Amino acid sequence: MATITKVSPLAPAAFPELPVINGARFATVEAGVRYQGRTDVMLAVMDPGTSVAGVFTRSATRAAPVLDCQEKIGGSSEGPAAILVNSGNANAFTGHYGQSSVAEVTQAVSSVTGVAVDRVFTSSTGVIGEPLPHERIVAQLDVLNSALQDDKLEDAARAIMTTDTFPKGASAQVEIDGKTVSISGIAKGSGMIAPDMATMLVYIFTDAKVDQSALQAMLGAQTDRTFNCITVDSDTSTSDSLLLCATGASGVDATDNADFADALEGVMLDLAQQVVRDGEGATKFVEIRVTGAVSGADAKVHGLAIANSPLVKTAIAGEDPNWGRVVMAIGKSGAAADRDLLSISFGDILVAEKGWVSPDYREEDAAEYMKGQNLMITVDLGLGDGESTVWTCDLTHGYIEINADYRS
Amino acid sequence: MATITKVSPLAPAAFPELPVINGARFATVEAGVRYQGRTDVMLAVMDPGTSVAGVFTRSATRAAPVLDCQEKIGGSSEGPAAILVNSGNANAFTGHYGQSSVAEVTQAVSSVTGVAVDRVFTSSTGVIGEPLPHERIVAQLDVLNSALQDDKLEDAARAIMTTDTFPKGASAQVEIDGKTVSISGIAKGSGMIAPDMATMLVYIFTDAKVDQSALQAMLGAQTDRTFNCITVDSDTSTSDSLLLCATGASGVDATDNADFADALEGVMLDLAQQVVRDGEGATKFVEIRVTGAVSGADAKVHGLAIANSPLVKTAIAGEDPNWGRVVMAIGKSGAAADRDLLSISFGDILVAEKGWVSPDYREEDAAEYMKGQNLMITVDLGLGDGESTVWTCDLTHGYIEINADYRS
Repeated sequence: MATITKVSPLAPAAFPELPVINGARFATVEAGVRYQGRTDVMLAVMDPGTSVAGVFTRSATRAAPVLDCQEKIGGSSEGPAAILVNSGNANAFTGHYGQSSVAEVTQAVSSVTGVAVDRVFTSSTGVIGEPLPHERIVAQLDVLNSALQDDKLEDAARAIMTTDTFPKGASAQVEIDGKTVSISGIAKGSGMIAPDMATMLVYIFTDAKVDQSALQAMLGAQTDRTFNCITVDSDTSTSDSLLLCATGASGVDATDNADFADALEGVMLDLAQQVVRDGEGATKFVEIRVTGAVSGADAKVHGLAIANSPLVKTAIAGEDPNWGRVVMAIGKSGAAADRDLLSISFGDILVAEKGWVSPDYREEDAAEYMKGQNLMITVDLGLGDGESTVWTCDLTHGYIEINADYRS
Repeated sequence: MATITKVSPLAPAAFPELPVINGARFATVEAGVRYQGRTDVMLAVMDPGTSVAGVFTRSATRAAPVLDCQEKIGGSSEGPAAILVNSGNANAFTGHYGQSSVAEVTQAVSSVTGVAVDRVFTSSTGVIGEPLPHERIVAQLDVLNSALQDDKLEDAARAIMTTDTFPKGASAQVEIDGKTVSISGIAKGSGMIAPDMATMLVYIFTDAKVDQSALQAMLGAQTDRTFNCITVDSDTSTSDSLLLCATGASGVDATDNADFADALEGVMLDLAQQVVRDGEGATKFVEIRVTGAVSGADAKVHGLAIANSPLVKTAIAGEDPNWGRVVMAIGKSGAAADRDLLSISFGDILVAEKGWVSPDYREEDAAEYMKGQNLMITVDLGLGDGESTVWTCDLTHGYIEINADYRS
């Protein structure tokens, strides 16, 4: 693997200050799963009564830890809960050995922390196809358990990184019934999957009290509008996981609270966009807004077709306002479109309308706009009320370097 | 646009000798549509009674010439037929002006050649969104018409090139009832669509006599096994067109002849593979065979998911036998797969089986294999009898150079 040490040009200036989430504690350690000289395992332990919701990759070749989490989500919220994540090895495509590793780790976490095994969730990210050296993780569990502290979420964000060039965190606070409810989350991921080591993992914690089934329903809908609206390279990891834990420590029931839902969605969108901003080789962050589609689902199909088109992505890398490629992507998406009703804008610049270039369009204006780092492409299909927004990055030599050149 | 003058390393040694097709004549000219110092328009005129079949892009934003051809296919085969193709300008996304241009050109071809306008087919390939300077084409029609000769198909292959690095031709001859039937075809294309100039155009001619509806049915089935099984970058042109003309001049009726069908499919596959071999930036030609799928359709979904995955394509570029990425692509394809039944081979090297790396696998063997120029990836899903083969190329810095760097 190439050592890509340069931080993405699209990275935030600094890791944000994350409010402490009462009822959740974190610890990290250097277990030497694969990397040397950095932390690579994080443990989170949540107080009894914590609701845990989760969404996972839809890949048909999901990794063993994902399958284990999926079985456990929706169970009792009675006792404490724990999350253990390692980087360096994905424990993916490791046959029955992979399942045994998950069993070994979850059992050991249960023994050390006192959390029931069906409330112990794990994720692994890193190389595929190599057996997880789970004994190295198990050997550090006592150290981890005795180091748990409520202010170590940033450390956790660093421990789960693989090809990421910066750690990702986001937070929000809302007032409900005169009390403050906090949400803090971390994420990793810089391609949908990377060299041999990547995936998107997200862990969000709140001190709100939310019933598990309500939390799960909220998470599903919000994932569709956030993490399922981003794409770096159209490839999907076998390990993508998002766990959302509501400790209830604030004493505030936020089960059907709209402000809480909005705040949570904001945190998810922030983290999702940070993953795009760390897209492999990315130099431009691109928002693609599609309106006027027959349905919202159709709008998203168009948006993702544009966002995933190698020709659109390379045009953006080349700072080329190549609206012809946008038309091409809309045409191939499979969703309804009428060439002669389309209008396309780059930023505020109306480029094409009614199936042809706009009479006022001057390419030099659009070419100047394309030099920016944060771009917006707007497409109106002129067919109906369906709309959707997706986010992506450009396709550059950096992507090829990271994904093709690492052996040469 | 970058001037990419280097011929693809995957190009055939030379343009093949194409047998003359009696009943079809060709001419080319420098009309200056956009390029200078090269031919950019080709005219083909076929004798009365020629059956013309066609398949076209399914894009919802199809170009005006495509829509015009689609209307005409399936009409009478009575009189002569003509095909006029220009490179340099795609006449795509040009609003109502685009339709007028097609009408102008087809009417003028009809006047000059005496072919009824509903038997005049046109294609345009090149920049999108700019009005076609059809008057430059019309001005050359007398010259073209008086230059028609039966041995100028190679010239035609050159006149229709855009970003292609080599002209593409293929042929076959079969004995039917003691007589020789010939098939000669040409193609252009080097991405599904390219910088501002590309698309896949294919013109095949035979002196067999085949009823139009039979010819159309044969073409549709064979396209699904040839041109619809190739991908360079997953992007689809707004202008892709394939026209198949059977002049009947051999006097041999090949309507339900299996040998003829096989020969035609061979020509189509040869041309399709040449398009992949001219894929933008390609350095490796890759055959992907999927077996053991629930259905043939499922097998093709898996094959194209592997072929279109940027991570698989960059791994191939990096000569990396990265089977984990193949597993990833299968997982995300949406078609049925069972992780623990998969087996994957690179060439003859069994890499993974039963959901894990094969016990006999030595990575150095596979790494050596990946250095080859022509590669085969075989996946058995272990689920059923469905199978499919698709062809693709790698994703390299060359692709980024062609598609992103041309303005810098």
